[in-house]
Order: sequence, then C-alpha cells, then structure tokens
Amino acid sequence: MSEYKVALIGFGGVNRALAQLAAENNAKWQSELGFQLKIVGISDLHLGSVIRPEGLDLNALRNLPTEKGALAKLSGGSIDAATEHVIETSGADIVVEATFTNAVNGEPATSYCRLALSKGISVVTTNKGPVAFHAQALKREAAANGVHFEYEGAVMSGTPVIRLAKELLAGAELKGFEGILNGTSNFVLSSMESGLSFTEAVEKAQRLGYAEADPTADIEGHDVRLKVVILANELLGAKLKPADVPCKGIGDLTLQSIHDAAAANARWKLIGSASRMADGTVRASVEPKLLPLENSLAAVGDAINAVTFRTGVLGDVTVRGPGAGRVETAYALLADIISIHKAKVAQGK
Amino acid sequence: MSEYKVALIGFGGVNRALAQLAAENNAKWQSELGFQLKIVGISDLHLGSVIRPEGLDLNALRNLPTEKGALAKLSGGSIDAATEHVIETSGADIVVEATFTNAVNGEPATSYCRLALSKGISVVTTNKGPVAFHAQALKREAAANGVHFEYEGAVMSGTPVIRLAKELLAGAELKGFEGILNGTSNFVLSSMESGLSFTEAVEKAQRLGYAEADPTADIEGHDVRLKVVILANELLGAKLKPADVPCKGIGDLTLQSIHDAAAANARWKLIGSASRMADGTVRASVEPKLLPLENSLAAVGDAINAVTFRTGVLGDVTVRGPGAGRVETAYALLADIISIHKAKVAQGK
Repeated sequence: MSEYKVALIGFGGVNRALAQLAAENNAKWQSELGFQLKIVGISDLHLGSVIRPEGLDLNALRNLPTEKGALAKLSGGSIDAATEHVIETSGADIVVEATFTNAVNGEPATSYCRLALSKGISVVTTNKGPVAFHAQALKREAAANGVHFEYEGAVMSGTPVIRLAKELLAGAELKGFEGILNGTSNFVLSSMESGLSFTEAVEKAQRLGYAEADPTADIEGHDVRLKVVILANELLGAKLKPADVPCKGIGDLTLQSIHDAAAANARWKLIGSASRMADGTVRASVEPKLLPLENSLAAVGDAINAVTFRTGVLGDVTVRGPGAGRVETAYALLADIISIHKAKVAQGK
Repeated sequence: MSEYKVALIGFGGVNRALAQLAAENNAKWQSELGFQLKIVGISDLHLGSVIRPEGLDLNALRNLPTEKGALAKLSGGSIDAATEHVIETSGADIVVEATFTNAVNGEPATSYCRLALSKGISVVTTNKGPVAFHAQALKREAAANGVHFEYEGAVMSGTPVIRLAKELLAGAELKGFEGILNGTSNFVLSSMESGLSFTEAVEKAQRLGYAEADPTADIEGHDVRLKVVILANELLGAKLKPADVPCKGIGDLTLQSIHDAAAANARWKLIGSASRMADGTVRASVEPKLLPLENSLAAVGDAINAVTFRTGVLGDVTVRGPGAGRVETAYALLADIISIHKAKVAQGK
C-alpha cells in the first residue's frame, strides 16, 4: 500500500472533482489500485492557498465555498495563492496542475510544472498549454530528476487516447490520426443538423454549459489546434508549435451547407489531423471536413469526441468517449497517478 | 537490447504473419521497442516441426511451402509435430500458441500452454479456447513460475481491447460492455442491408475469405460467446464458462426484419454483452439486438469490430478496429511480447 501526497494547483471544477473522487474512493483505491491520495496543499488564484502536511479533510473540501479567499479560513490557509510556496513546502510527491490554459505561451502553468519537476516532484496535468508548448522539455526535466510528467487529460479528458496510441499501439506503425477533439463545436454542428442556426446552436451550447461565454477558442478551432500539436508531437515525433498548424473553424458553415451534406449522405465535422509524410515531416491541420456517413467519425454526435489512429499494421483504430467534463477530466489525473504508481511498483520502490 | 527466443506452436496464417513481421521489422524493433525475435522452434500438425536453437532464417520461412511435412526438410526438422518436444527442448523464452480454437474444452492448446508455463516459459496466444476455459488457472500457473500468460489477440485480434479496459480504464468503475465481436456475422448483416439474402450474404463472406467453409460458429454466435466469456471473466471478475452464456445467432433474421429496422432508423447487430448486476453477479448474453442509429455500435459495418465499455466515471468509451486478419492478429502477439518486455525492463532484468 502506498499513499501519495498531492498538491493541487488550481481548485476549479477539475481538481475539486479529483478531491471528491478521492473522498469517495480512497478506501477502494487502496485495495484495488494499491494506493490512496492525501491532499497536502492547494493553491488557487481566487480561493487562496492552504498547506497541511498531515493531509486536508477530504470531506470538508467538498463543501468549501467558492468565495474569494475561502482557503484562507482553513488552518494553515492564506489569502495569497502562493503557488510556488505550496509546491516547494507542502511536501507533495505529486503536483496536480489544473489551472487555465494559456494558448499563447502556456504560462504560468509551465513555470509551475518546471519548478515542481526541478524539486523532484512528479507533475500530472490536464492543462493543454504546458503540454502543447513544452512537453518534450518538461519530460526531459522530469527524467533528469527521476520523476514523471504525465498529461493524459490534455486531450479528450479521461478517454485514454495518448496512452492507447503510445503504449498499446506501439509497433503498429502509426502514420497519422484524425479526430473530433472539441465537444462544443461538435455539439453546435449536431444542433445545426437538427435545424438550429449557428447562433442558436452556440447559445444552446452555452445554456447547457458546453460553451464558454466567449466560445471563440472552441468555434474557431484554437482548442483543437493545441490538441493536434500535443498528439502530433507525442505520437508522430513532430516538433510543431500551435502557430505552425493551419486552423479554420466552423464559423463559415451555414445551415444550407449542413443540409446539403445530409442530402449527400455526409456530415461536416471539425477535424484535427496530422500525418507523417513520405519525407518524414509531419503535416497537421484543423478544418471542417465533409465526411461520408460510413466514416467512423461521422456518427460521433453532440459533445462526444473521437480519434481515429491510422496504422500500417492494423489499419484504422478508433476510440470514442467523453472529451470534457469535470469528473471525466479528473479521471485523467487519476489515470496519470496510476501510471506513476505502476512505474514505482515495477521498480520495486 | 534484448532478444527473445520464441517457439511457434501452429504455423498457419497468424504465426506465419508473425514470422514475416519479424523478418521485415527486427532491426526497427531493436531500435524502437528494445528487442528482436529469434525463432528457435516451430511445431505444426500438418507441416511437422523444426528445432534450431541458433535461430531459423526468417526470410527462408516466408517461402516455406504449405505441403505436408514441409518443416521436415529443414535442418533439425521432423515429420512429427512433436509439440511437447519443441516446447521443452528448443530453449524458447516465449511460446507463441496459435493453433485452432477448440470451443468444447480448449484442448490440446491448454495443455501446451500449461506445459510451457510449468517449464518457466512465457506464453502468448491468440487462441480463444485456453483463455475462455482456463485463463485464471493459466495466469496462476504463470505467476507461480515467474513468467507471463498474455492473450490480447483472443478478442478483436490486434485491436487492444483487453489492455485498454484492464490497464487504461483502471479505476474508472467498469460496469459492463457490449460489442460487435465477430466480423463474419457483421459482414453478413451489412450485406443484407444492401439487399442480399442471408444465404447470398454468407456465400459472399465465404468468397471474400471472411467466413469458414462451415460458418456455424460465426453465424450462430458461438465465436462471440467465447469472447464474451473471456472479457467478462477478465474485466468483470466473472467465473463464466461458455455454456453459462445464453447464445442466439443471426440465422433467424430475415431481409424483411433488416428492412423494417432501416425504416425505423435502426440496425440489427449481433451483440455480445455482459453487465455486473447490483448483487455482484455478472449477466452475459449473445443475441441480435436492434440498435438505434445513434448507438455508437450501429455505424460499425462490414467486418469491423467494436466494443463499448460502460464505466461509472467516464460513461461510455468505445474502441473500434479490426477483429480478424492474419497480420492484425499477429500484431496482438507482438503487443503481448512488448508487454512482457516492458515488465522485464521495469524490473531491471
């Protein structure tokens, strides 16, 4: 039996869901997975911070108010987010980074990850920023310090696409992938197929909590572009930056074009893809594509995500599952910690 | 760098494809996966056997005739299949068992597996018989001898469904699964949707090499039933025997019922499924089910397979890919060997 001391950076929906999963399942994880989690520190820009080396009360965290400075009221708490201080002094074995995605340069999350790794603390994250911009450097930093940098949740939340391709399709000669990697834009397209205008569909997505108040990143493909970069760099050995990837969103698709597609037994989907070319380079793009209904991605509706891996040995392998959600994304963090635990057990530590 | 000495039991399509993959990729596997394969023995009921501790010429094996006793003509060869002798004396690290599936009791393959494991030799197999009837006992035998028993290819050939569910969905609270687990029957249903009668569709499947001369096991669901037992026992902790699972094939589906389904925006699919009940028992079945088109399995056509895992934490996760094929099934054996190699590396051996 092991116990991992974790520090949570960001205490929004995802890390709150992780704390709740731990509160509900720690005993079961101990028997079924071989470990449990103790939360020894939390840092949040809005809520403040708390350090508690002996472990916070997980049930109390479920009821933590969302008001500014709420963590300051706990013993060991402070009004200050004090992120570096929490990373350095909470005694964490694993830092769980789940702050906002900065699509310009991945900061400040990248610096938080780098600080933790440099101190010999493993990092698991769902944040696309550090991974899209700096995955290879952060993995090197982790390896140099004998720890781990894991980020399954950066693409398709808890649906295990990165590990599926990297671990379970090893040796299958991966040539490329294409995927529906953003639930909001896919929901908008599905809604337009049932007759809503683009504007009505976006509003519906906002009402249901799928779309942000500013839906630009989802609708214009910027979110997909980060995920394409992450997958292409990780799985195809590319060295892409987001700006290298041509990106076109769904904003130009009209109800007429959606209906024309249906009449032709096809569907418009926002597709992120990358392929290894004959010369070894990797070509990637984000754009709406007209898929015939027999394409395995065509039937993926609403906010569901899916990605098809094109392999030389197996042909196409498609995985389909949730692409977002608090609990679904928190599960990715658990999966990352399971991976760290397995490596530790295998090494007999 | 490691080299695994393998003995191939059965030298039909699948193990021939594995030998060919090794001939073409050994150098690449050495650099990318960290190992290569040396074939030190082969046993086949029809071809005879050969033992060559220094390794057989992989390129020569590609051109081995299919005539009776062909292995006897090689140096170290014999007209006798001599399976136990090959297992015991070839010096193999890994026995690759790919003989025919015996759906009654899993023999003689089970005895071959048990013999190898008892001698401290790992076993990888694509044979549903030993796995459906004796997976737990064979895994215990492997563990007791410090070796491995792996069988990813027993379900959906090289599409990594067993490891996906067992390793990558650990902690996601698997509640059950439903799948299209037989390509032949699915091809027949797809062909009937395009207007062929049941008999014409079966004949077409036979012409294309999807169906056996006697298609009973595919059409009547017996093949699916073995796979359901394997998945239910492995993933849901059931202790099912094939005879425990109610099984109904597609033989009663008429063109009329297929057309009625289409008119109702639905499709008939032969579904193998299992669910954990509230009392902890597992209920499994094989039967044609009428799926609405929005079900993620409804769009899976022709000889493709797919399985949907129902989880408490992530909801549904579906993986879709090839369910048969010589090379696709041989890849499953490679994936099993990769898994054995990883365990060895992690243990610092």
